[in-house]
Amino acid sequence: MSHGKPFTLITNVLGPNGWKVEIVLQELKLSYEPLYLSIEEIATKQLSVTKYNPNGRIPALIDHQNNDFVIWESCAIIYYLVEKYDTQRVLSVDKFEDKMILQQWLFFQASGQGPYFGQCGWFKDNAPPPKIPEAIERYQKEILRVFSVLETVLSKQSYLLGDKCTVADLAFVMWNELAIKGYVNDYNNFDFPRDFPAVHRWHHELLARGPAQTCIDLRGAWLAAGRR
Amino acid sequence: MSHGKPFTLITNVLGPNGWKVEIVLQELKLSYEPLYLSIEEIATKQLSVTKYNPNGRIPALIDHQNNDFVIWESCAIIYYLVEKYDTQRVLSVDKFEDKMILQQWLFFQASGQGPYFGQCGWFKDNAPPPKIPEAIERYQKEILRVFSVLETVLSKQSYLLGDKCTVADLAFVMWNELAIKGYVNDYNNFDFPRDFPAVHRWHHELLARGPAQTCIDLRGAWLAAGRR
Repeated sequence: MSHGKPFTLITNVLGPNGWKVEIVLQELKLSYEPLYLSIEEIATKQLSVTKYNPNGRIPALIDHQNNDFVIWESCAIIYYLVEKYDTQRVLSVDKFEDKMILQQWLFFQASGQGPYFGQCGWFKDNAPPPKIPEAIERYQKEILRVFSVLETVLSKQSYLLGDKCTVADLAFVMWNELAIKGYVNDYNNFDFPRDFPAVHRWHHELLARGPAQTCIDLRGAWLAAGRR
Repeated sequence: MSHGKPFTLITNVLGPNGWKVEIVLQELKLSYEPLYLSIEEIATKQLSVTKYNPNGRIPALIDHQNNDFVIWESCAIIYYLVEKYDTQRVLSVDKFEDKMILQQWLFFQASGQGPYFGQCGWFKDNAPPPKIPEAIERYQKEILRVFSVLETVLSKQSYLLGDKCTVADLAFVMWNELAIKGYVNDYNNFDFPRDFPAVHRWHHELLARGPAQTCIDLRGAWLAAGRR
């Protein structure tokens, strides 16, 4: 890669998982070159995303400062970034048990939030017709269940790990934003601040930090301009 | 807990995610007391699984040797166990970059295998009637896609991290077993050894180690006896 920056991020405009990593890179003030592949380029493997990731999905990170070390899976990338580069523990933690709890929340995001929120998006917006109401409602209910889990924790403490904002919190922002705006906004009289006040407070605190809102705005502008 | 063993595992007979942890505990020869909650007990929170896990799901591990430290999310538990107790690196790795790749595969299992295999099981076996063929086939196709990703890697090396079997490999066994036997066995002339020879070889090597097969047999016997 000839861009001279320390990292290349192979990613995509539409999906939230690449943006999760961009938010963390920007929060940590790490300079990176994003390589946005279109959905079609990924599907047809034109740019050989499988060269970097056998799963054929984005994101994948190449760390040019570490012998072009390649890592994929967005939460694994995030954990790699903080373990190697967040040496001041701005967005991470130092004690062994705290690291394991940070990982616990990353695994909950990766397994309990992302896939189910993504299935809702699929059946609501992308599946071939006819719509399948049972499938849409299954995943809308699951989104509200995940919000209620977060609410029980965030009504007692500021962030998932306690008083400190970490990458565990930031990993949830993009999918939550999509759900709030497009997946459950029309479901069962959903009212985000009324129904989930602590999650609402937390979500807006995370946006107000800057990078997450910047990424949401950039994604919106590009989608509006026809990029996918 | 008065059983005197170093770990309590809050788990369930039916779901594969608790067994993932049991396989690793047995492989590491760690003594534990499994507390099997029924589906009904979990759903009605009779035994307060949310006391240990706000997500209200199994498994959760309590480490009595570490001030009753509680951790949930099956892959986070597995990573905790090897980082703290697999000091001889029997099923894990020592170099920082290798640890990150091990995590990458755990995240792929947690986000790319478990949820989609589980959705297939739901729409095939558990959803209220009528059956939704489009949803069943969506997830059957995804199972075969995951098998094809594993095949590309395992046709070139023995295990996901190379020559050495690790917990990353073992994390895939239970869901793969369910898929092979019950989710894609009737789909599109599926023939496991013919279609995915490297995955087939790997899966049977993992079973032949002992603990995974023991857990599969125990689960089958209990389900046959009516436990859920």
